[in-house]
Amino acid sequence: MKKNQSDTPALSVDRKILITDCEDAQGLIAKITGVCFAHHLNIVKNTEFVDHQQGRFFMRTVLEGHIDDDALLADLRLVLPEQNHMKLVDAGRKRIVILVTKEAHCLGDILMKSYYGGLDVEIAAVIGNYDNLQALTEKFDIPFHHVCHQGIDRQQHEMAILEIIKQYSPDYIVLAKFMRILTPEFVAHYPNTIINIHHSFLPAFIGASPYRQAWERGVKIIGATAHFVNNCLDEGPIIKQDVINVDHSFSAEELAHNGRDVEKSVLSKALQLVLDEQVVVYGNKTVVF
Amino acid sequence: MKKNQSDTPALSVDRKILITDCEDAQGLIAKITGVCFAHHLNIVKNTEFVDHQQGRFFMRTVLEGHIDDDALLADLRLVLPEQNHMKLVDAGRKRIVILVTKEAHCLGDILMKSYYGGLDVEIAAVIGNYDNLQALTEKFDIPFHHVCHQGIDRQQHEMAILEIIKQYSPDYIVLAKFMRILTPEFVAHYPNTIINIHHSFLPAFIGASPYRQAWERGVKIIGATAHFVNNCLDEGPIIKQDVINVDHSFSAEELAHNGRDVEKSVLSKALQLVLDEQVVVYGNKTVVF
Amino acid sequence: MKKNQSDTPALSVDRKILITDCEDAQGLIAKITGVCFAHHLNIVKNTEFVDHQQGRFFMRTVLEGHIDDDALLADLRLVLPEQNHMKLVDAGRKRIVILVTKEAHCLGDILMKSYYGGLDVEIAAVIGNYDNLQALTEKFDIPFHHVCHQGIDRQQHEMAILEIIKQYSPDYIVLAKFMRILTPEFVAHYPNTIINIHHSFLPAFIGASPYRQAWERGVKIIGATAHFVNNCLDEGPIIKQDVINVDHSFSAEELAHNGRDVEKSVLSKALQLVLDEQVVVYGNKTVVF
Amino acid sequence: MKKNQSDTPALSVDRKILITDCEDAQGLIAKITGVCFAHHLNIVKNTEFVDHQQGRFFMRTVLEGHIDDDALLADLRLVLPEQNHMKLVDAGRKRIVILVTKEAHCLGDILMKSYYGGLDVEIAAVIGNYDNLQALTEKFDIPFHHVCHQGIDRQQHEMAILEIIKQYSPDYIVLAKFMRILTPEFVAHYPNTIINIHHSFLPAFIGASPYRQAWERGVKIIGATAHFVNNCLDEGPIIKQDVINVDHSFSAEELAHNGRDVEKSVLSKALQLVLDEQVVVYGNKTVVF
Repeated sequence: MKKNQSDTPALSVDRKILITDCEDAQGLIAKITGVCFAHHLNIVKNTEFVDHQQGRFFMRTVLEGHIDDDALLADLRLVLPEQNHMKLVDAGRKRIVILVTKEAHCLGDILMKSYYGGLDVEIAAVIGNYDNLQALTEKFDIPFHHVCHQGIDRQQHEMAILEIIKQYSPDYIVLAKFMRILTPEFVAHYPNTIINIHHSFLPAFIGASPYRQAWERGVKIIGATAHFVNNCLDEGPIIKQDVINVDHSFSAEELAHNGRDVEKSVLSKALQLVLDEQVVVYGNKTVVF
Repeated sequence: MKKNQSDTPALSVDRKILITDCEDAQGLIAKITGVCFAHHLNIVKNTEFVDHQQGRFFMRTVLEGHIDDDALLADLRLVLPEQNHMKLVDAGRKRIVILVTKEAHCLGDILMKSYYGGLDVEIAAVIGNYDNLQALTEKFDIPFHHVCHQGIDRQQHEMAILEIIKQYSPDYIVLAKFMRILTPEFVAHYPNTIINIHHSFLPAFIGASPYRQAWERGVKIIGATAHFVNNCLDEGPIIKQDVINVDHSFSAEELAHNGRDVEKSVLSKALQLVLDEQVVVYGNKTVVF
Repeated sequence: MKKNQSDTPALSVDRKILITDCEDAQGLIAKITGVCFAHHLNIVKNTEFVDHQQGRFFMRTVLEGHIDDDALLADLRLVLPEQNHMKLVDAGRKRIVILVTKEAHCLGDILMKSYYGGLDVEIAAVIGNYDNLQALTEKFDIPFHHVCHQGIDRQQHEMAILEIIKQYSPDYIVLAKFMRILTPEFVAHYPNTIINIHHSFLPAFIGASPYRQAWERGVKIIGATAHFVNNCLDEGPIIKQDVINVDHSFSAEELAHNGRDVEKSVLSKALQLVLDEQVVVYGNKTVVF
Repeated sequence: MKKNQSDTPALSVDRKILITDCEDAQGLIAKITGVCFAHHLNIVKNTEFVDHQQGRFFMRTVLEGHIDDDALLADLRLVLPEQNHMKLVDAGRKRIVILVTKEAHCLGDILMKSYYGGLDVEIAAVIGNYDNLQALTEKFDIPFHHVCHQGIDRQQHEMAILEIIKQYSPDYIVLAKFMRILTPEFVAHYPNTIINIHHSFLPAFIGASPYRQAWERGVKIIGATAHFVNNCLDEGPIIKQDVINVDHSFSAEELAHNGRDVEKSVLSKALQLVLDEQVVVYGNKTVVF
């Protein structure tokens, strides 16, 4: 079992994150934290949210101690309403695979932040449908797979990518300006696991050329949106959004140039939230603890 | 002639704003400022913008001195390309009429800022299709006209409003959460003169109930957009936009409640820009100097 | 007992906020929420924070149900470490007294927001050491007390103010650009109860004329800070800060003019947090839930 | 002569930036742009600023055409007040040398942005007083010089650095978290040429450990400041500042960790402004066009 970084060798303890998601009921916090207490676990941080409109309860609990996963979950199940969802995951470093096309800024930011410790993640591999980002990837001693989409059909291309992804068993897949639309068949393999960056403030400017659309509309702010990928284009649960101010003097190309900064920053922040298990998908929305 | 506020009685000078908008050509800044210099005018501030894609030149010049409007414009016309547009307006206080429905926050903000000098504007009158904002308006000794829309058709209602507006000869008309759609006939009376606040970050969530739309989509940022009104709903030239961060814990009602702060702030900033003659409409966009 | 606004007459329940602040220990969340559950109380919202460095635990719990304050606190005391602090307050509307000098923008914003429901607060009275804000205050049917500081010494002036404040028994006192420094004797009457707005991004530009200081330093951002007042000038626990961008073209006067918007916005947001009992003072800092 | 990127081979033109800084006088814009027009130069962009308090005029003019530097400057000198400053520089790519200590985030950001074209700059060399950033620098095929400060005195260390810098003739020197204070002797070699990033929102938290100071003060916002280096620690003319929101849950270490994002972003934006010749130093302040 992976250990927490601040463990002392003699008294090693686990740090895990428990996500609970169930129908709302009285006493849930008392019951869940009571079970944790009975297991002699320390609660490092606890955050809850109740959607009072839909009567749904969500809680994220960071636990420390000697954790017997099966016993803990079994005891929790006894106190929760039926049809509950629980997720108990190690708080340690996660593994990702990154998909790219031609643009370097989002990939470059993740590579660099990972290099100096700004993002605590293991980048297992980068897959590109062009090969122009291979040199950049390999500077950081990370394998690059070029899976060209030309001369084969969409299904074959996706199958080839899937084959490579599988061999790395990533926790999450990051589309760092991967400019091809994934089929429902592909997405079905990785529900709530694929994170995309869309280069607009969704739902404004869905689809192609959002910066040109923004320029034509004469907006005074542009943005970027990181979201989980589901089967509808640019329609998955939003994780993070941010914006920058622009003015009349920006051409469509300058909007795109300047938009890159907010794209990489939003993707990197969304990735951090996901890696820290702070994001719970709920219908087509997210609860971000 | 209205005088600049800082005039001393003995040595009174005018302060005016010249907006030039014409085809781009070499030497335009030299020629325009040369004419101003020949008229012994001081340039307090000068800002220009060239849309290199469309070959169009824009300049805003704040002039001080003894200004002979007709002579100045005639001399400028001699040096400009044909089909130029010029506007020479007094830099002093402008007069507005405000249209409202039921919500008080935008109206209240303009009334209050005007009261303490945060916004240098003369509010000539407020017109409402309900009467619930009459008391608030009259606290500030400003006439309120209740023009109920019930029992008459749209055309009759707009005619009644137009009649009232005309008697005040406003420089600008402000829709401070006026929730009725104006007809093209109404708008045609006041081209690039009517400022609206839309309670979303346009072009996201055009039309009704943008906060509910935002809640359903699960966005992490909401915004507001101030724009000139033209004949397409929520489609006029954008003057100013701003946003605030929200999260999963906001209900649609809480989004609307919190959105009011950004609505009034954006409307107030847009109004300030317009009153200062910093906004030039250009196609369906604005140049904001 | 004040009732929650959404109560139906037949099935009235209380809504109260419990703030717990004690030494950290294992099982605290389980114990506290367990006591609440045993009292048949519903937890509407629960937020906790542990300062792991200082081993201190903080929790804010919004409770709903038939609350027997004494019994609840007694039972909680049994499960908490010694030297705990608990605060159990009604979630309803709070009463404030506002102190002003000459500037209208912060007072005006609170009056207006309160008028249209943007801030749910009872403004019991306004006290000014000048009388120029009397007319504005009385527009909103709120009593204004002019307590001139001239011709009397500081102690007498503060005594006169204290006398007036006492008769209103406010929950909080708001210094809305009250430009006199309060003595420790005055402050001692209202610990963690007086909220001040300082017109700079503290700790930059402590003391007088912060906008002039900012202009001289050539900063590119200015800000405002809302804090509780303690005995050190501009040194109390910070509740909220915000900033706006400025540039070289702003004179010191224009910085001050533009700074008013961020001052009133920060004060209003800080006041909202305090009124909602989201702010816990802790040493010279705040935990803002 | 370096050519503009968009030049066509047949009709090559220069693009240069003229910065004028002189006593204010009537007709300056007309006179300067008149001279440019007489030289058959096209003004791509023109921005002016008058400090009316100090009676000083600043203008930045982007010129295109066949530019005879000496003739143009001579003709301009004839129309300007005495004691004017003019700077006529090529608009093309500039060369920088970067100084670092141990932290990688600012260096990494500049390297990466330069790699993918987010920052149009030639990084001639990196100099570090430790060698741990050598590997990162060399990934991008840029020479790294390790100039250890141990075992030699400050003067010797600075002389060694100066020797290396000189051989690259940089336009600007960037201190990308270079944690040693430069002596006035060093700075005197490169007036208004050395750009530093300070890890606080100056003038708050001058000097060492600003994040710890911020944590102890309990601020709700932290920032970073990019400034030119002069002879006073953290006191040079400010180019750019930005901030991020923090809360009570951040430890001093987490403030520092999160502050890295705003540090690198502010440094990168300031560098872009300087490289584009948009920054004019003026006393201890900057005009940023």
